[in-house]
Amino acid sequence: MRISRLKNLKLLISDPSDIFYFTGFYPQFQAFLLIDRKPVLFLCEECRSKIEKHGLEKLKEWVSGEEVGIDEKNLAVEWLKKLEIKPWPASQLIKKLRMVKEPEEVEKIKRAVRVTKEILEEIEIKGREIDVEWQIRQKLAEKRALPAFQPIVASGPNSRIIHHRPEKRKIRKGDVVILDLGARIDFYCSDITRTLGGDRELRERVLDIQGRIIDMLEPGRQIKEIDREYERLLGRKPWHSWGHGIGIDVHEPLGDTILEGMVLTVEPGIYQRTGCRFEDVVWIRKKGARVL
Amino acid sequence: MRISRLKNLKLLISDPSDIFYFTGFYPQFQAFLLIDRKPVLFLCEECRSKIEKHGLEKLKEWVSGEEVGIDEKNLAVEWLKKLEIKPWPASQLIKKLRMVKEPEEVEKIKRAVRVTKEILEEIEIKGREIDVEWQIRQKLAEKRALPAFQPIVASGPNSRIIHHRPEKRKIRKGDVVILDLGARIDFYCSDITRTLGGDRELRERVLDIQGRIIDMLEPGRQIKEIDREYERLLGRKPWHSWGHGIGIDVHEPLGDTILEGMVLTVEPGIYQRTGCRFEDVVWIRKKGARVL
Repeated sequence: MRISRLKNLKLLISDPSDIFYFTGFYPQFQAFLLIDRKPVLFLCEECRSKIEKHGLEKLKEWVSGEEVGIDEKNLAVEWLKKLEIKPWPASQLIKKLRMVKEPEEVEKIKRAVRVTKEILEEIEIKGREIDVEWQIRQKLAEKRALPAFQPIVASGPNSRIIHHRPEKRKIRKGDVVILDLGARIDFYCSDITRTLGGDRELRERVLDIQGRIIDMLEPGRQIKEIDREYERLLGRKPWHSWGHGIGIDVHEPLGDTILEGMVLTVEPGIYQRTGCRFEDVVWIRKKGARVL
Repeated sequence: MRISRLKNLKLLISDPSDIFYFTGFYPQFQAFLLIDRKPVLFLCEECRSKIEKHGLEKLKEWVSGEEVGIDEKNLAVEWLKKLEIKPWPASQLIKKLRMVKEPEEVEKIKRAVRVTKEILEEIEIKGREIDVEWQIRQKLAEKRALPAFQPIVASGPNSRIIHHRPEKRKIRKGDVVILDLGARIDFYCSDITRTLGGDRELRERVLDIQGRIIDMLEPGRQIKEIDREYERLLGRKPWHSWGHGIGIDVHEPLGDTILEGMVLTVEPGIYQRTGCRFEDVVWIRKKGARVL
């Protein structure tokens, strides 16, 4: 059991993705999972206000005055006061378990990747950026997948903007187009980027950097070492990091070291007159990274 | 200007919906709007970690050691420590401005309501609950609307569960089906519920209660008074509240008093052997509520 790996600690888990990880239930409203001798889930079954009125009293009885590990990156300030706990920061500890994926988690990410790649093959680049965005959203719904994040469709000069939001710009023949999208299936995410058109040499250079980083990804490798190599390959400070963990959340922390069983994205990018980025999802095996 | 109504206060705004309300920009990553003599938006343009490294130092310089109103229902615990502020709770104050809608906000909600009603007319009740859910999600994408929340499709005995999540239950002829869905267009939400089939008397009773509550909704009316009347009409403690504010968020607070210009939903429900709920969005005018 996942929770048993946290035993002998009193933890208050508040991030819905963490609660899903430990319980298999994804809360839509405020919920708390108290991990102590036995885990208890405090649920708001009806509406946000109900947990404050009912569940809160019980939860407070159990934790008030106690030293409790909290997810300081997620827990809202008001709960510290309401629950009267002595908090200690446990975000890293809580997230750490999620870094290494179990085989059934990898299977779900694979399905999300497969659907995303299908959409990338089917998509027609025509009309305005937002038209392409809606084409992506329609295809996701047709394939019974949720968007893992707002799809990026960045054309022409907009391709330099890393988290560009599709706008009414008409895509012209010969424009560079960056498509960055992900499906979420069974609560697990994918995140893939393709750059269409533009300077061929630039595309090859970015793909080469991506390949070199993927080659470095083996268990035991330090993240800092990859950061340094990425900076060296680019010949400058990166515009954004070379990748991120992925799973129940589209962005998950990576920790300090690559571990067997991690799933992450590799997404180097170069942004000049136009931008270029390629992103794939990889799974860390004993001998190195396998592109999903 | 909306922000000018908050002048002479030092406030740190962290809820993306609030930031959108004050700036017209909806941040996808952690962002802070500092309202002081002049408002400053601290944006994370690239990734979550960047604001911590760069924007944070500037923001900290400005607020460290100061008394700052925070959104205690939203701000994560870690920021209190990182920014070294003396916080005072300002959630209510910040949300209050959003309660009364401007005409262009009402127009956007109207569009979201229109699309939702179109979908409710087009939808075919067939297959399993999740099939109907995906039908709704597809129609939303076709109409270029986002789902305001996970659509509820609750059939047969599931209709008793207020926030039921569609499951693999096959919908049978003669089943009660509750559909509760909303579109989000231009960042504004709708939220409509219809009950199909089931006991006709029960349906008429719920609709009657809905009409009576709508009749009560006029500027100056106390929320508590409506709560009491709702309980009286049901003849028992309600399973859930009779309605909620709606706008940029699908659930917005209502405050103590009905005010001209508010937009809210009215959603009485009765849950017996099967459930029954009707929900509409209303706009408060000088003379009373207008159903959108």
